[in-house]
Amino acid sequence: MMLATRLIERKRDGGRIEPGEWHSLARAYASGHIPDYQMAAFLMACYLRGLDRAETAALTEAMLRSGETLDLSDMRVPRIDKHSTGGVGDKVSIVLAPLVASVGVAVPMMSGRGLGHTGGTLDKLESIPGFRTDLSLAEARAQLDRLGCVLIGQTGEIAPADRKMYALRNATSTVESIPLIAASIMSKKLAEGLTGLVLDVKRGSGAFLPELERGLELSRTMIELGSDHGCPTVVLITAMDRPLGRACGNALEVEEAILALRGEGPDDVMAVTLALGVEMLVLAGVTTSRDDALKTLRDAISSGRAAERFQLIVEAQGGNPAVVDDPAILPQAGECEIFRAPRRGFVARVEPRAVGRGVVAIGGGRETLDDELDPASGFVITARPGEWVESGEPLATVFAANSVGVAAGRAALRQAITIADEAELPLPLISHRVSATGIEELATS
Amino acid sequence: MMLATRLIERKRDGGRIEPGEWHSLARAYASGHIPDYQMAAFLMACYLRGLDRAETAALTEAMLRSGETLDLSDMRVPRIDKHSTGGVGDKVSIVLAPLVASVGVAVPMMSGRGLGHTGGTLDKLESIPGFRTDLSLAEARAQLDRLGCVLIGQTGEIAPADRKMYALRNATSTVESIPLIAASIMSKKLAEGLTGLVLDVKRGSGAFLPELERGLELSRTMIELGSDHGCPTVVLITAMDRPLGRACGNALEVEEAILALRGEGPDDVMAVTLALGVEMLVLAGVTTSRDDALKTLRDAISSGRAAERFQLIVEAQGGNPAVVDDPAILPQAGECEIFRAPRRGFVARVEPRAVGRGVVAIGGGRETLDDELDPASGFVITARPGEWVESGEPLATVFAANSVGVAAGRAALRQAITIADEAELPLPLISHRVSATGIEELATS
Repeated sequence: MMLATRLIERKRDGGRIEPGEWHSLARAYASGHIPDYQMAAFLMACYLRGLDRAETAALTEAMLRSGETLDLSDMRVPRIDKHSTGGVGDKVSIVLAPLVASVGVAVPMMSGRGLGHTGGTLDKLESIPGFRTDLSLAEARAQLDRLGCVLIGQTGEIAPADRKMYALRNATSTVESIPLIAASIMSKKLAEGLTGLVLDVKRGSGAFLPELERGLELSRTMIELGSDHGCPTVVLITAMDRPLGRACGNALEVEEAILALRGEGPDDVMAVTLALGVEMLVLAGVTTSRDDALKTLRDAISSGRAAERFQLIVEAQGGNPAVVDDPAILPQAGECEIFRAPRRGFVARVEPRAVGRGVVAIGGGRETLDDELDPASGFVITARPGEWVESGEPLATVFAANSVGVAAGRAALRQAITIADEAELPLPLISHRVSATGIEELATS
Repeated sequence: MMLATRLIERKRDGGRIEPGEWHSLARAYASGHIPDYQMAAFLMACYLRGLDRAETAALTEAMLRSGETLDLSDMRVPRIDKHSTGGVGDKVSIVLAPLVASVGVAVPMMSGRGLGHTGGTLDKLESIPGFRTDLSLAEARAQLDRLGCVLIGQTGEIAPADRKMYALRNATSTVESIPLIAASIMSKKLAEGLTGLVLDVKRGSGAFLPELERGLELSRTMIELGSDHGCPTVVLITAMDRPLGRACGNALEVEEAILALRGEGPDDVMAVTLALGVEMLVLAGVTTSRDDALKTLRDAISSGRAAERFQLIVEAQGGNPAVVDDPAILPQAGECEIFRAPRRGFVARVEPRAVGRGVVAIGGGRETLDDELDPASGFVITARPGEWVESGEPLATVFAANSVGVAAGRAALRQAITIADEAELPLPLISHRVSATGIEELATS
């Protein structure tokens, strides 16, 4: 492929790729005319050399146009989606999508799979026995009309160039690049025919972009791409210096999400879910009052409507709906072990990257494109940064298929959880709100 | 593969890879436990971030140890090889190896295939009907004992990690990196059990490293690697701002090499061959006088012994030995066309990269790992930089399989050959000699 060679060389040497070239590249890669190894070299060159604003827009457009888009323009209800840049223990999508749908906003949610140390919503959902995420666009549209929500993977029809590239980036350590992340997220989201989009951009040591400044840059990039395509986009910056919630691992996280739909989730999971939900309702025009929006969402949870909507979605997508009442239907680990505090002191760190890598190490995550997952493996970590613990006090539970997995999990938690004489304050859970009009600081760290 | 991910990330972020890690990486890649796409991303990170001296040495050692080595320590004669960093029209190996062998120095020459715009000695040799380059190490050793020369490819047994990486770098535009080039060349050469090594490092627009300074840096790096392994190494810096000789294309170059073995090759091919041959004889200890060495080589050519030795080698390796007397046995192109000067003036440039890319474009070169070659396609370019030509005067001949190829070749030559009112002096053919004792300037440009 002369094309691939030329573009790899140009980007390697710091040059610009033109819009027509991005289109040709995306098409050729999606159709298998450029091999993975050439694209991998190109992506590393993009990672290290960067893309300017016009290149990012052209790549987004090229990936968007590499496949089909959902035409939802005839739907009478607003369509709002939410996307997170990915974290450890982040099961918010599974709570938020049915919750917002249950109050009359359509949520055509297309999610991804595990990326490095972070999990993926699809992997989590597929731990529900029978649950299908591979609906066709026609099936998705029908379910959206009926239930106001669909939880699917990026179909082969949507942005196929992005789908391949996303998997390859995961396996080649080229994920943490602002233009590549922005183009990947927005090409999928803009293909969903949305009237608005809410983004959860993580910061802190477990985020793809740990530094706040980089998170804000990513936010601005995505807000611009949204504006250019007539899709108003709002970002909340949330903390990923510790896992979100307690459960880390696919089936374990579904269980926690079900608790959250009943209002019984951990405080941080509830807070992030509600804050994002409020933004979605306001963007949808359901109300202009944030207080009203919050009340609407709380009512949907306490009345059981949110959990009921999730049950209908699970059933519609082939999953066993009894899971909502009885999470024990989820795959269960062969072995488990309590992890205890090695000394007394403050919980100084629960390091999300170490936790995420631990999930991979015990079989619950994915390292290369074809790895199989064990949905039942993972951790439930009850220790929270800043908390005082006594020596021997339970901090977490390891779930794994066998004793080898348990040992790997134990080793990972020893790395991940630090007990010390002092503990710094963790990052504020929700620190900034970013929109086309600017950055609003919600809490100071 | 946790290993690959960790090393890609570290090199991407500018970190160092430790000796043990290079060994693990080379072993895992050679055995197929690391996929090409991960290695491609790693190589691009190496290209852009660089390797320090210790890393280069460790990579060389790791690739050398990834396979077998030739144990020639019981041979009574000196073993000297020559390697070129690759150029357009460079068929010197095919002349030099039999020539030097015919005067009593063993030449266990292991060559490579086409790399981007440059040809490879193996591809050239294989245009001889029946010629096998895939001898086993045992076969190679037997032929070396009998004929003092063997012309083979890097067998699966020798530096398998390098063999795979070399092919991948070619397809991912990660060739032009000093540490990667040095480690690749030296890992193979040090596996040959040599008593000395002569390197032809190209400079000028058609070289992998066009700038003299970079060529000298590569030279020093390779000389150090050679010294560390007890293999005295000498470098000549030669010109690649124009093709070497007239023929560019596999079968056409073999024909020109056969002419050179009879003393009838183009002046530049003869000069580079003899200069490198002199270094080989001196390193071998055949003589300490460069004049004596030159006379010895000239005698071998004029007496017919050099051509006869090549004939024996061709026969031993399964090729049709009649080719030495009758090059028409080589594959012949389906069509040819004279390329004429578009105007009168000086030949200002014969740009080797454009010529090399032209050979690829008409099917005589290789773009990705699995491309097939047409051995008969190529150019014979008689125009030399600095020469005065009249409008319509023949400058070159295009050889191709069909009229589409001829048209592509014509287009390539239009790009490659510039006629102008003035012409700058081309680079001196042989400008520097570099050894462990320093750099000697032989001609000024």
